[in-house]
Amino acid sequence: MIPSAQERTDPGFTTAEHTAMTAALDAAARGVRGANPVVGAALLHQDGRILHTGHHSGAGTLHAEADALRKAKDAGTDLADVTMVITLEPCNHTGRTGPCTGAILDAGIDSVIFAVHDGTEAASGGGAFLADHGVSMRHGLLAEQAADLNDRWFTAQSQNRPFVTLKIAQSLDGRVAAPDGTSQWITGPSAREAGHEIRARVDAILVGGGTARVDNPTLTARDAQGNPRDHQPLRAVMSRTPVAHDARVRRGVVASAHNGEIDGRFVWLNTHDPAQALARLAALGVTHVLVEGGPTVSAAFLAANLVDELWLYQAPMILGDGKAALAPLPTQTLADAARWRSDPVAGPSVRTLGNDVAWHLRPAAVSVSK
Amino acid sequence: MIPSAQERTDPGFTTAEHTAMTAALDAAARGVRGANPVVGAALLHQDGRILHTGHHSGAGTLHAEADALRKAKDAGTDLADVTMVITLEPCNHTGRTGPCTGAILDAGIDSVIFAVHDGTEAASGGGAFLADHGVSMRHGLLAEQAADLNDRWFTAQSQNRPFVTLKIAQSLDGRVAAPDGTSQWITGPSAREAGHEIRARVDAILVGGGTARVDNPTLTARDAQGNPRDHQPLRAVMSRTPVAHDARVRRGVVASAHNGEIDGRFVWLNTHDPAQALARLAALGVTHVLVEGGPTVSAAFLAANLVDELWLYQAPMILGDGKAALAPLPTQTLADAARWRSDPVAGPSVRTLGNDVAWHLRPAAVSVSK
Repeated sequence: MIPSAQERTDPGFTTAEHTAMTAALDAAARGVRGANPVVGAALLHQDGRILHTGHHSGAGTLHAEADALRKAKDAGTDLADVTMVITLEPCNHTGRTGPCTGAILDAGIDSVIFAVHDGTEAASGGGAFLADHGVSMRHGLLAEQAADLNDRWFTAQSQNRPFVTLKIAQSLDGRVAAPDGTSQWITGPSAREAGHEIRARVDAILVGGGTARVDNPTLTARDAQGNPRDHQPLRAVMSRTPVAHDARVRRGVVASAHNGEIDGRFVWLNTHDPAQALARLAALGVTHVLVEGGPTVSAAFLAANLVDELWLYQAPMILGDGKAALAPLPTQTLADAARWRSDPVAGPSVRTLGNDVAWHLRPAAVSVSK
Repeated sequence: MIPSAQERTDPGFTTAEHTAMTAALDAAARGVRGANPVVGAALLHQDGRILHTGHHSGAGTLHAEADALRKAKDAGTDLADVTMVITLEPCNHTGRTGPCTGAILDAGIDSVIFAVHDGTEAASGGGAFLADHGVSMRHGLLAEQAADLNDRWFTAQSQNRPFVTLKIAQSLDGRVAAPDGTSQWITGPSAREAGHEIRARVDAILVGGGTARVDNPTLTARDAQGNPRDHQPLRAVMSRTPVAHDARVRRGVVASAHNGEIDGRFVWLNTHDPAQALARLAALGVTHVLVEGGPTVSAAFLAANLVDELWLYQAPMILGDGKAALAPLPTQTLADAARWRSDPVAGPSVRTLGNDVAWHLRPAAVSVSK
């Protein structure tokens, strides 16, 4: 399939290929943020039809390429004269789901377009591998949009650290507890359940020593009925003082008729430095960590520019006094303020959850390693 | 028109009348909060059709009844066998737009249903007046919903004080300025323009002495191009110390090729007590005041439960330090926290304005004087 010059939208690509990559980007945005990049794929027929799209729904699920190929198989779609259009270079390693390069070859796809290279050590080289096996490989179509979609993920990868999600649930005036310490509940059930959904898809939850001591949380991921979910993250406490032996966070053993006993493990991170905490977690195999406060820890991660994704839940309540969600940051003037932008993944940047509002944001400062 | 027992939804009212009142309530919610209550009206034909609805769009515009009747006139609608269904007792006084009772009689309407009485001195007695003139009067249909729509407006009326709108434009962490005092701009152009639209429909804007001194604002209502709007509110500064003679807020004279010179007047309120400030404004004929801070004044109005409506604009920015939107309130425990609920008027309680979010709320504690 040789595009005519008139059809080109990006140099070297046809309008149909451009449309297919846009569809793949839209599919990618249906994914969720986390330990893996969000990726979308589209199967484009030579006649211009987009036959199927696929996306990656999070760690442990099918990669975008495999998702699209599964749909094609389910529908009995003939894959002759089909180009696979992908937002990220197909992976070449066997993780939880097998390499995408193999799946592409097995499906008989002989033409692939991807937007940006996967620079990670484990996954890179997929493009070269496929080219060596006779697949026509092109890349660079809508590369800027594709890179933007995973800008912070690429950053985390390049820094060999876990992807960091910060969750805050606060009042309109940015507080997380009343002066007497009461804090249950500021946000409503829907926002709290959304928080547990995040817990269930991360490798680790991290809190500060103060939160562990004062709130004495279990840090387990539970469903709407309060039962533990199947996946329980590692529980991490970041503190220069040891965590009490009877702290709930140490136990992490949840008896449940439904799930039996679950232990997501516990680790004490003897540091005040977020970068050190992340290095320790990375060594434990953590690729996605959820920071849940308190104010000192949240502010430390923000000040170090180590927050990749922010979920801010806000209740229509004015506390007027009590604990702020964030300890003071070293801002001097308005131009220093950390600006955030919409995270296009999994819906709009702002949505209502019952009476509450959920913001889904990422840092506005782009630091992309393409 | 005598309803059959089977048709009744509220005692004494037919399903059609119930539907018409619901339509009137929906119409009322298209109004704007302010010096007048939000009111809706529907013209219901005996055959069950709702011929027209009307609503009040704010001070100086047609009342809901007149709005519905104007639509009927414009459409050449025959008003025989028509019941006027209104969310509030029709007014009986000549304000800026003439009494609705007269308009109803002039239109030949001989049957009226309203939801709740208008207890205000100036407007009450409309129902009795119409009954005296031979109109069939009934009331009480969906009274709870209708009262709820204007709960805080009724409260303000019963306290003989202006209706109070509080506007806050803050960062995600509830701050309105950086440590060095820079504050322009936290929210974006759309949110700022929305703020000026509120200014243009109030009788007065009130700020504290600190804001007048530090920010030195003009407190004029301007359009998106920065030109003064036709209506300029009274500018009020609440402070125990006199306002500087060269303060911009005193001048309030805005030269403009478009509007010539505008002066919305200035008043210094020598008090720290919000109730006293409101009493003084009421004496000056103010029926709707917009409180724009600073933190001490905003907190004082909140602490005194003298905020009827809250517009909270939030930008996706974390300042991390600097001036909080609110000075501390006397909250001790979570149960003390002021909870807010959706204000159903003029759209959803939360909407996006560019990158920002606008919350439109009213106090959740209902104090209705029916």
